[in-house]
Amino acid sequence: MHDTLITALAAGLPAEALITDPDVVAAHSRDMAGFTEVGTAAAVVRPRTVEQVQHVMRTASGLRVPVVPQGARTGLSGGASAVDGCVLLSLERMDRVLEIDPVDRVAVVEPGVVNAVLSKAVGEHGLCYPPDPSSWEQCTVGGNIATGAGGLCCVKYGVTAEYVLGLDVVLADGRLLTTGRRTAKGVAGYDLTRLFVGSEGTLGVVVKAVLALRPAPRPQLALVAEFPSTGGAGRAVSAIMASGHVPSLLELMDGTTVRAVNAMAKMGLPETTEALLLAAFDSEDPAADLAAVGALCEAAGATDVVPASDPEESEMLLQARRLSLTALERVKPSMLIDDVCVPRGRLAELLDGVAAIARRYDLVIGVCAHAGDGNAHPVVCFDGTDEAEAGRARESFDAIMELGLSLGGTITGEHGVGTLKREWLARELGPTGLEVQRGIKAVLDPLGLLNPGKVL
Amino acid sequence: MHDTLITALAAGLPAEALITDPDVVAAHSRDMAGFTEVGTAAAVVRPRTVEQVQHVMRTASGLRVPVVPQGARTGLSGGASAVDGCVLLSLERMDRVLEIDPVDRVAVVEPGVVNAVLSKAVGEHGLCYPPDPSSWEQCTVGGNIATGAGGLCCVKYGVTAEYVLGLDVVLADGRLLTTGRRTAKGVAGYDLTRLFVGSEGTLGVVVKAVLALRPAPRPQLALVAEFPSTGGAGRAVSAIMASGHVPSLLELMDGTTVRAVNAMAKMGLPETTEALLLAAFDSEDPAADLAAVGALCEAAGATDVVPASDPEESEMLLQARRLSLTALERVKPSMLIDDVCVPRGRLAELLDGVAAIARRYDLVIGVCAHAGDGNAHPVVCFDGTDEAEAGRARESFDAIMELGLSLGGTITGEHGVGTLKREWLARELGPTGLEVQRGIKAVLDPLGLLNPGKVL
Repeated sequence: MHDTLITALAAGLPAEALITDPDVVAAHSRDMAGFTEVGTAAAVVRPRTVEQVQHVMRTASGLRVPVVPQGARTGLSGGASAVDGCVLLSLERMDRVLEIDPVDRVAVVEPGVVNAVLSKAVGEHGLCYPPDPSSWEQCTVGGNIATGAGGLCCVKYGVTAEYVLGLDVVLADGRLLTTGRRTAKGVAGYDLTRLFVGSEGTLGVVVKAVLALRPAPRPQLALVAEFPSTGGAGRAVSAIMASGHVPSLLELMDGTTVRAVNAMAKMGLPETTEALLLAAFDSEDPAADLAAVGALCEAAGATDVVPASDPEESEMLLQARRLSLTALERVKPSMLIDDVCVPRGRLAELLDGVAAIARRYDLVIGVCAHAGDGNAHPVVCFDGTDEAEAGRARESFDAIMELGLSLGGTITGEHGVGTLKREWLARELGPTGLEVQRGIKAVLDPLGLLNPGKVL
Repeated sequence: MHDTLITALAAGLPAEALITDPDVVAAHSRDMAGFTEVGTAAAVVRPRTVEQVQHVMRTASGLRVPVVPQGARTGLSGGASAVDGCVLLSLERMDRVLEIDPVDRVAVVEPGVVNAVLSKAVGEHGLCYPPDPSSWEQCTVGGNIATGAGGLCCVKYGVTAEYVLGLDVVLADGRLLTTGRRTAKGVAGYDLTRLFVGSEGTLGVVVKAVLALRPAPRPQLALVAEFPSTGGAGRAVSAIMASGHVPSLLELMDGTTVRAVNAMAKMGLPETTEALLLAAFDSEDPAADLAAVGALCEAAGATDVVPASDPEESEMLLQARRLSLTALERVKPSMLIDDVCVPRGRLAELLDGVAAIARRYDLVIGVCAHAGDGNAHPVVCFDGTDEAEAGRARESFDAIMELGLSLGGTITGEHGVGTLKREWLARELGPTGLEVQRGIKAVLDPLGLLNPGKVL
């Protein structure tokens, strides 16, 4: 079977696009998720053209071989991890920016273009592609589309889904489907574009995307506010949003994270801080907006509010947030990054609940949050070689999702379901939702070959 | 059969919610589309609760009776028109605003709430629900969701789809499906919410919606620019958008429309005007933005640029645009309103092409356009009692859609497909797209009872 597959794949691919060396295949077999099972793939293919992708899908369908589409494998839910016997279909070599149109404010790209490369390219036209996941210097736009990626910008500029106007998708049987449009508006038929965004490679393989762009924003100005309690920071977030402010960034670090960053980078943040709120504005008068938001923070109990006076100083303040994951990584040998999103008015309850879970399971859990979106990333720090602790880490992860759902939230704000949260998805969707979603999957992938075992 | 249906419906509905009087039923049997066939309905039902909607769908499924969901029937594509033997399911009585939350910036509403009523309600909280179709004082939010409605605001604030976070939908078999979320972000499973938005009642019946809101914008300031050619106005639109401006409104009226408005309202617009461009800004310094845009208009050939000095004067300038349809209605007894959308850089070609079509078919066709979106509404004015002229009107309508597609556009920017554009949809989607869309329809409506003959 293996030989038949490799021969059939080779018939339509240049030699350099087909890799069967077991070590290289193994190195391509997982993304950055923890606690997920990884299978043994048969091969990696790295096509450069749509026709080559079609050949791969036709071959795989003909031989009933599963296919796992991959971008840069920076995902955190196992969506790009191998399943046994699969073809790993890497889109990294299809990395061209095909077109940037400043009048229509669109970019047309291949899926393998790196987010940062696209950002730079459109920046040269005075434009901006907002979605900025923290892996933006590695991750591909195709991967961003597959997971429905977010980032720091979302509180003002929204998520990846809002920037995808149209797609070219190779279907499971190798046919090419074009969805959506490159016009600003359009309602012709059902919105298939949005169906593929966030589908994690389970419905088709994105080979081209028409992306909406925005005029480049002004440089942002930031402030940092220190709170002696998460409740105070949560109240500040509610007050800021209820007052009609539109921050370009509204991030939160809990006390555990602050102390980890302090220990690593000696930033001199007060150890008594239980929550650090970072707010930024790219408005016409950001200093005025920061002054207003600073006053709201103080009213909510902030002990110190430090506004930056220029964009460089702002970047320094934001540095603490950027170092969070690296700092938490030093606390314990292993790390499990969660991604729950609650209505933003319930953020403080989520933070307090996570702190209680950390105590209950005797674990270190640091939380960074896109506070303005109610989207928190509790980071469970543990020792993977300690079986009991690893078990408690896994249990705490489930407890956090349970907590998120109980607060009216979702099990994933921006990282996706993959294999990691598949059981929890059924719980969030309920039986009717699950049945409808499975029905749609069956329409697009009747043989169940596209990224099987992921999402549903 | 009719008696069986009525008896079964009556068993789960209050008497006042079930109407069988043929005159009343007939009066509810069409929306505002021209050139569309209308069938004879069996009854109108006007439920007030989700359970009543579920009863209607269970009854209809059991008896294999088609159901046509309806809002205010202001649609322009026949999506809400009766088919023979159907139940007209009017959602107008489910018209409550259930919740407005200024922290989460969401409203939870029933589908029958009128767009203007919702706008007023959220306005009292300093918030705004942007989608503003021109029928906003009559049309329902449920109808807006069904058609994916747009409006004047879209150039800055986007369309209905971008404001729908989650839905409760009664499926064809009466089950209740909840989609999406009320959080700012969420990627758990496939995006079913967006699948229902714009599906024109063919996939399910929306009974509740969670809508995203924005802080209320500042009052806008407008200018009017007169052009001796559509090409000049098109160039101005391209220059404005390429320069990174973000107008809150960017509308265009062609010479035919200008002359019709002049004839009706004696607004003293120069008869030599071949295109009138209206731009507005709700930015911090709208006068400065208008000055910059005015200069771009002059550089593109505008003969006169008139900026308003205050919001009241702005409203007067926009009045000409608001009167367009009423004025064109006076030109001939019948009117057919089209809705094509092209990449905005090709707007001038679309306008010139429509003018050529008007000459070819010897018809009066006035064009209003959401110019900033490339979304034009060519209005074919004709005498419906003149069979030859009506035939030419119908042919010109097809020619306009053909033109829109040839310019890389779509057959509908915001009005939907309904029955009017069903044949054209197949052409826009192509065979693979059509097959996938039909597959999805079959998953959600296996008996084909939901608004049959619409969209696909």
